[in-house]
Amino acid sequence: MNFTNPFLDRDGDKLREECGVFGVIGAKDAAAMTALGLHALQHRGQEAVGMTSFDGSEFYSHRGIGHVAQVFNSAERLAELPGAMASGHVRYSTTGGSGLRNIQPLFADLASGGFSIAHNGNISNAMHLKRDLVQKGAIFQSTSDTEVIIHLVATSRYPTLLDRFVDALRMVEGAYSLICMTSEGMIACRDPLGIRPLVMGRIGDAIVFASESVALDVVGAELIRQIEPGELVQVDHKGIISSHRPFGNFNARPCIFEHVYFSRPDSVLDGQSVYGVRKQIGVELAKESLADADLVIPVPDSGVPAAIGYAQQSGIPFELGIIRSHYVGRTFIQPSDGARHADVKRKHNANRALVEGKRIVLIDDSIVRGTTSMKIVQMMRDAGAAEVHMRVASPPTEHSCFYGVDTPERSKLLAARMDIQAMAEFIHADSLAFVSIDGLYRAVGEAGRNKGCAQYCDACFTGDYPTRLTDLAERDTPDLLTLPINRVA
Amino acid sequence: MNFTNPFLDRDGDKLREECGVFGVIGAKDAAAMTALGLHALQHRGQEAVGMTSFDGSEFYSHRGIGHVAQVFNSAERLAELPGAMASGHVRYSTTGGSGLRNIQPLFADLASGGFSIAHNGNISNAMHLKRDLVQKGAIFQSTSDTEVIIHLVATSRYPTLLDRFVDALRMVEGAYSLICMTSEGMIACRDPLGIRPLVMGRIGDAIVFASESVALDVVGAELIRQIEPGELVQVDHKGIISSHRPFGNFNARPCIFEHVYFSRPDSVLDGQSVYGVRKQIGVELAKESLADADLVIPVPDSGVPAAIGYAQQSGIPFELGIIRSHYVGRTFIQPSDGARHADVKRKHNANRALVEGKRIVLIDDSIVRGTTSMKIVQMMRDAGAAEVHMRVASPPTEHSCFYGVDTPERSKLLAARMDIQAMAEFIHADSLAFVSIDGLYRAVGEAGRNKGCAQYCDACFTGDYPTRLTDLAERDTPDLLTLPINRVA
Amino acid sequence: MNFTNPFLDRDGDKLREECGVFGVIGAKDAAAMTALGLHALQHRGQEAVGMTSFDGSEFYSHRGIGHVAQVFNSAERLAELPGAMASGHVRYSTTGGSGLRNIQPLFADLASGGFSIAHNGNISNAMHLKRDLVQKGAIFQSTSDTEVIIHLVATSRYPTLLDRFVDALRMVEGAYSLICMTSEGMIACRDPLGIRPLVMGRIGDAIVFASESVALDVVGAELIRQIEPGELVQVDHKGIISSHRPFGNFNARPCIFEHVYFSRPDSVLDGQSVYGVRKQIGVELAKESLADADLVIPVPDSGVPAAIGYAQQSGIPFELGIIRSHYVGRTFIQPSDGARHADVKRKHNANRALVEGKRIVLIDDSIVRGTTSMKIVQMMRDAGAAEVHMRVASPPTEHSCFYGVDTPERSKLLAARMDIQAMAEFIHADSLAFVSIDGLYRAVGEAGRNKGCAQYCDACFTGDYPTRLTDLAERDTPDLLTLPINRVA
Amino acid sequence: MNFTNPFLDRDGDKLREECGVFGVIGAKDAAAMTALGLHALQHRGQEAVGMTSFDGSEFYSHRGIGHVAQVFNSAERLAELPGAMASGHVRYSTTGGSGLRNIQPLFADLASGGFSIAHNGNISNAMHLKRDLVQKGAIFQSTSDTEVIIHLVATSRYPTLLDRFVDALRMVEGAYSLICMTSEGMIACRDPLGIRPLVMGRIGDAIVFASESVALDVVGAELIRQIEPGELVQVDHKGIISSHRPFGNFNARPCIFEHVYFSRPDSVLDGQSVYGVRKQIGVELAKESLADADLVIPVPDSGVPAAIGYAQQSGIPFELGIIRSHYVGRTFIQPSDGARHADVKRKHNANRALVEGKRIVLIDDSIVRGTTSMKIVQMMRDAGAAEVHMRVASPPTEHSCFYGVDTPERSKLLAARMDIQAMAEFIHADSLAFVSIDGLYRAVGEAGRNKGCAQYCDACFTGDYPTRLTDLAERDTPDLLTLPINRVA
Repeated sequence: MNFTNPFLDRDGDKLREECGVFGVIGAKDAAAMTALGLHALQHRGQEAVGMTSFDGSEFYSHRGIGHVAQVFNSAERLAELPGAMASGHVRYSTTGGSGLRNIQPLFADLASGGFSIAHNGNISNAMHLKRDLVQKGAIFQSTSDTEVIIHLVATSRYPTLLDRFVDALRMVEGAYSLICMTSEGMIACRDPLGIRPLVMGRIGDAIVFASESVALDVVGAELIRQIEPGELVQVDHKGIISSHRPFGNFNARPCIFEHVYFSRPDSVLDGQSVYGVRKQIGVELAKESLADADLVIPVPDSGVPAAIGYAQQSGIPFELGIIRSHYVGRTFIQPSDGARHADVKRKHNANRALVEGKRIVLIDDSIVRGTTSMKIVQMMRDAGAAEVHMRVASPPTEHSCFYGVDTPERSKLLAARMDIQAMAEFIHADSLAFVSIDGLYRAVGEAGRNKGCAQYCDACFTGDYPTRLTDLAERDTPDLLTLPINRVA
Repeated sequence: MNFTNPFLDRDGDKLREECGVFGVIGAKDAAAMTALGLHALQHRGQEAVGMTSFDGSEFYSHRGIGHVAQVFNSAERLAELPGAMASGHVRYSTTGGSGLRNIQPLFADLASGGFSIAHNGNISNAMHLKRDLVQKGAIFQSTSDTEVIIHLVATSRYPTLLDRFVDALRMVEGAYSLICMTSEGMIACRDPLGIRPLVMGRIGDAIVFASESVALDVVGAELIRQIEPGELVQVDHKGIISSHRPFGNFNARPCIFEHVYFSRPDSVLDGQSVYGVRKQIGVELAKESLADADLVIPVPDSGVPAAIGYAQQSGIPFELGIIRSHYVGRTFIQPSDGARHADVKRKHNANRALVEGKRIVLIDDSIVRGTTSMKIVQMMRDAGAAEVHMRVASPPTEHSCFYGVDTPERSKLLAARMDIQAMAEFIHADSLAFVSIDGLYRAVGEAGRNKGCAQYCDACFTGDYPTRLTDLAERDTPDLLTLPINRVA
Repeated sequence: MNFTNPFLDRDGDKLREECGVFGVIGAKDAAAMTALGLHALQHRGQEAVGMTSFDGSEFYSHRGIGHVAQVFNSAERLAELPGAMASGHVRYSTTGGSGLRNIQPLFADLASGGFSIAHNGNISNAMHLKRDLVQKGAIFQSTSDTEVIIHLVATSRYPTLLDRFVDALRMVEGAYSLICMTSEGMIACRDPLGIRPLVMGRIGDAIVFASESVALDVVGAELIRQIEPGELVQVDHKGIISSHRPFGNFNARPCIFEHVYFSRPDSVLDGQSVYGVRKQIGVELAKESLADADLVIPVPDSGVPAAIGYAQQSGIPFELGIIRSHYVGRTFIQPSDGARHADVKRKHNANRALVEGKRIVLIDDSIVRGTTSMKIVQMMRDAGAAEVHMRVASPPTEHSCFYGVDTPERSKLLAARMDIQAMAEFIHADSLAFVSIDGLYRAVGEAGRNKGCAQYCDACFTGDYPTRLTDLAERDTPDLLTLPINRVA
Repeated sequence: MNFTNPFLDRDGDKLREECGVFGVIGAKDAAAMTALGLHALQHRGQEAVGMTSFDGSEFYSHRGIGHVAQVFNSAERLAELPGAMASGHVRYSTTGGSGLRNIQPLFADLASGGFSIAHNGNISNAMHLKRDLVQKGAIFQSTSDTEVIIHLVATSRYPTLLDRFVDALRMVEGAYSLICMTSEGMIACRDPLGIRPLVMGRIGDAIVFASESVALDVVGAELIRQIEPGELVQVDHKGIISSHRPFGNFNARPCIFEHVYFSRPDSVLDGQSVYGVRKQIGVELAKESLADADLVIPVPDSGVPAAIGYAQQSGIPFELGIIRSHYVGRTFIQPSDGARHADVKRKHNANRALVEGKRIVLIDDSIVRGTTSMKIVQMMRDAGAAEVHMRVASPPTEHSCFYGVDTPERSKLLAARMDIQAMAEFIHADSLAFVSIDGLYRAVGEAGRNKGCAQYCDACFTGDYPTRLTDLAERDTPDLLTLPINRVA
């Protein structure tokens, strides 16, 4: 009935980041700042949002289905979240009202006091740990992997909360960037590989943590630095900051796809401008796979920076050959005798007057299932394009992600099923090329990929997973704990 | 409570088209096609939408506050609008639930049967006509100027409905592109000056009318031609089309601002690609007012085509120096100690890594109040831009529109209050230039503006209004009929 | 989705009053008082409610589907209805959201100024008048018969508004108790036969009008007197009251069913206590049709007063043998293998411990279709009653009402289809008796019914309609104006 | 905003039962039957409702704020609760949307499988137990005392679920009638004192449990017997019933106030008709405290049975001197210059024509704060009553309840603050009398109250609490666990 996700494009043939986190301690209006920061991270999770605040004695929470600006839509709402410390979370993957209990930050009253946690990432041995905890009498209130951490903290035998927290994290494998709150202050933490991003900033006397630097920009904070892989930063209510490295030394493996698609182009990630990297991927792509064409046309909006790079490198003019509608709704009734591909046309429409008779290079950031690419190539042909050459600003996506990105099963990934020639035929392009994995590493400033010891997590391209995948390995065992998410409201 | 207009940017310092219309006759699923067509015209009116259909014996209507995809969000809803003929309307200017009665198409049971009307434009003697009708006993159900036409038809003494309709239109002055329905068929009509656009297309055996050609594209119809200024086209249920010219010969004066901003870039208007015209304005602007700079940066999204033209003409690279968020909500609570201009940053954020230390040319389509321009220039400076030169793809907007565009009072138009030098200082730009009126006419393919007999309505730039403005002239007389719109729910 | 009418019992086999009206002039908080007064009249119309107020210069309105306490549920809502004069209306008969435009008070901007009207009753020549008005160019915005009066006022040739109003009413036939507002003040008026009730009261300097005296009680006003049949009372903003008799002399025929069922027992009607009359009907019924039984059991709640009278006259003890639930919802999903008649049991449940083995007299106010009576008799038998005698506190309901009461078609009235013996068998009662028409007249204080010149409208019992029924007579003629109510939203 | 509780009378100066439970196993449409059964128990809890079902492999739940007929308002909703076993719960005490997590049945995935619990009563050592559980690492998801039982089951060391459940209950003190579900079947259980009621019935092959027998009537089931105090009944999916007595022998102490007010008059409780007991209280009251008066008038609706008994015993006629509105909303805006006590008048209005000049005996079931009694006495005087004698069908309510009834603090109970003479003056009655405690015991069929060993829990009248009140005793100790219910949403 209500149209909670007007921006969500369910047909979107894209990998989707599953979460964004934001936290602030020491700010007069922490809740309003958190709402604004989450709004800047909305692209990381558009289905649900939650916030928890602490006013020195009590914790307060509010969660809802929908966008930040829908759920936190009034001064009254924010006034219900008082205090100088607040943290929040945006997410995908929650369907229907029944999922309210899965919306983060999760909160529990532990013996030591209140504890909240907001998590970006995915724990790859969550089911294994949950089974053991339930045997010991733990009762789970959500189906979120994140809740495992809370129960591990609650049942740890260590004396201090920080010790119990580290004890819990040592049992966990996978990807996590966490923002936690206790009555003592805020803890921000990144897994030893640093798979998901997390940055720290400052505004006045307040300390801010966020998934991406753009959230610092928008609230007016300055970027201090990123939280290092394996680092745990504690901030108390006096503003005293302490850094811990409880996991020893690891080679970090941050997600390279953040540079390709997930992060906003105006973010700075691992010290590099995302926009700059994307343009540079376009440059590499033009060097590797130049097409003889009249126009460079981005698939909007994610293909735009690479297309600008490709155009500048190649000298072929950059033009808007596809116009994107800003009003893409989730469901729309199709007329049965309407146009072919009306669903795509609602979102993207050919700039026919421009395209007609021209040889074009289409630039997109990635190909997942290939269905959208096929429709867009056809749209260009229907608009009269003489030739359509597709260039993709990432290597072929052949493997699923288990670190907090919503990927289809491997069998549905076009690149897992076909070679490039077959893919070109499938999408009906005159030619198709992907940037090489080394080209991608060059664009992020490396000389190339270190085979023995890759600098990034690039498992979706290479299948080289940097952690064990315990739950996946155990999945064949039937297990009462692998309940469907919507089993009980 | 509900967040009906997530896309609406109330701070948007833009002129706004007030309406879009769509109609189809002879299609199996007329209502679904109309919903899709209105969706493609959503940029012309984002606050409310209505649709009326006819199934051969009865008329059916549904109206609602919100976007097309919100109001017509289910197959059940569309099933309540049966029949092979349907028409619809999107609009701005309706605030709150109380305005349901003003949502078009308006409908009345006349003695001759049902009559519906959807109107894009504004009748400049509506108050004058309404006062006279009320004296004779007419009871108005809306505060819309459009209702005047229905009452004129209802009380006309001519025998046939077509004669009564023409009789009514002859009393009306101003801008109107109309799509009407009777039990006999559909009537599309454009005022003698053709101020607002209206096109005709075909899909299979069905005839389609729409404000812009993009709506034909999206439903899969082919463009036949535009309805000519002063033309009235009738289509009956057998598909027989007849054209009438009831108003004699006029020099047409279509709105030139449709080319500058209102229409979608993928529409074709007066035989010209809107995208092409906008790029050409950028070219003219670069010829007239070249800036010595490192980067050409569009104010997204409306400044992009002119910026591409400016970049191509000048050789200065086109870059995305401002990133636009897709998640702009209507209301948002500001943290009091947040950044300066957080409201603008929610929508637009500087690509700091790109801009820092650079001399930039900002390209926008127009300047209305100047408040947004001022904030964006400041955002570029805060991001480290060395120089900021503003170039505007239209002449200074000095006059209000009375033909269906929502303009602020003249006293709030920056160009009505200042000369260009003062404006540059107000927005804090290093330099400011507008395209000349002749440059604009060149971009639409003319040699220049014909002074004695302008080819377009350009009153917002020149003050040269092509019709009388009766209500405006009579406004000093106190009048019980000039009731506030929301007086009675 | 929302459960707007939790109290409404759609299965209720009852005739239903269709409207209640309330108005006040000269009160500081007229809107709050009107809400409270309408709340006391809620039993006269539970589906929709509207209110219009006047603050000395503007009129304000709000309407909604649901109960008074749902629609006027906040101080903010009432603050939107400022001024010292207000009137309101509760009604049945509006289905779905589409009926908003039919919710009264209706309002129009006439040449002489604003005019609002709230109507209890039914105009029996409305279609005839509407056809004529539409021929002359009138455009109707509702499908309510009441709107005819507004158009007649708008098009009357008389000079003053009062003359135009009387001119309009002279063309109208049927039942109407009206509360109107103009910028000059309030007009209350009752049709020449006085079919529907209307009373006048005073609180401080304010004058109050209402359908029933209970509304005066609840707002704290004292009853002055009823508006006489054919009387028109005007009150201006200074509190000056003038009474007019524009229709000459008639024999009044107020509705006798108001005493039987419609009015609240705590109202005083035609100078008589409704509760007292109902008890007296029970006394007459016991005199006419004594049953040899152990217990007198009312069908709650409407049968209670007559049952008390019957018990007092007969000496048989009054007992609650049927318990009524207060939580009767509109829709409820039946278990397929649940009890027989679970739908009735949700509302009424047998007090089995009391009834078992007893001979009982059931007292109900009326029998309409007989379906509920049949179920209740069966419920008593299932609970172990030895004998079930039904006594009814009104004569057999054989005819439809055309004066503002929702009656089924005549063919569905049990008494129109069967004699009393057959009715007894249909409802499976051991005996069945109705009070006689003269017994009913005795209960309201008459010696009996005057055959030539009945003192009340009792057409539902006798078929003796006191007015012409023009629309009914013309109904065979197909007519484009008899549109279904929900044709256009 | 929404008006979820139109029936709820917050001003109601009554003690309130806090919960009702219903369960069925072995029925084809268990969810629909449960909804119907809960609807019949709606008077036991009007603020929230929940249901859980089991289809042989999975558990399903739905909960909501509002009435049964609002929350389970569609076939689709019930279809989401498949299976032949279902149980549900209605409750008071949940304020705002934040309380969703406290709505029962509570559900947990234990190591042994799913476990649901619905509870009527109150655990008087819940805080004490909770503190201990949290120390051991338990994480509570609700603030309900009932959740303690689940954690005790989850952490018990006994091997079978039944043993773990009994182990848990042995640690619990207070009042509980429970309906639990596991994958093996249904368990119904009543605390050793049998404070709250619970009955068992049969319909076809299905077994039904409910708080009151009226719920069996309404779903068409026959009453088998009550669950005995201290009894635990297990029913498996084959319909095999086993009874256990795990707590040894106790003297039962069922709540006597169920007879006075909580239960529906058409229920049978402890083998006695509730209606019959209430009438007999009226008889005892007339014997003990006859008043010299003209009319016996019940305070509707709860005073009606005792008033009938009083009238029959005394020979004074029973009359409806107070008319109750069925449309009592939660919030209502008062006109400032309206009548005195308009809030009471919305609910109760004097039948002035009856009362005027008469000496009346008012019969009410109980006096709590006395505020409503005061207003009703005044209402009778304002309506012209010559004398007002109040008779109360229970002894003075001097003590709070800690067993599942919502009572004000002791200091707000009128009878805890004043003697009877002072109470008579406070409510402004000409005389006031309460039934004696022995009279009350006689009405339930005893010879009188056994002083040493009372047959019922009558602590609200006598202060003789049948269990320890551990949490109350420990309340002085500050405790982080006594969190306000709405602390975290």
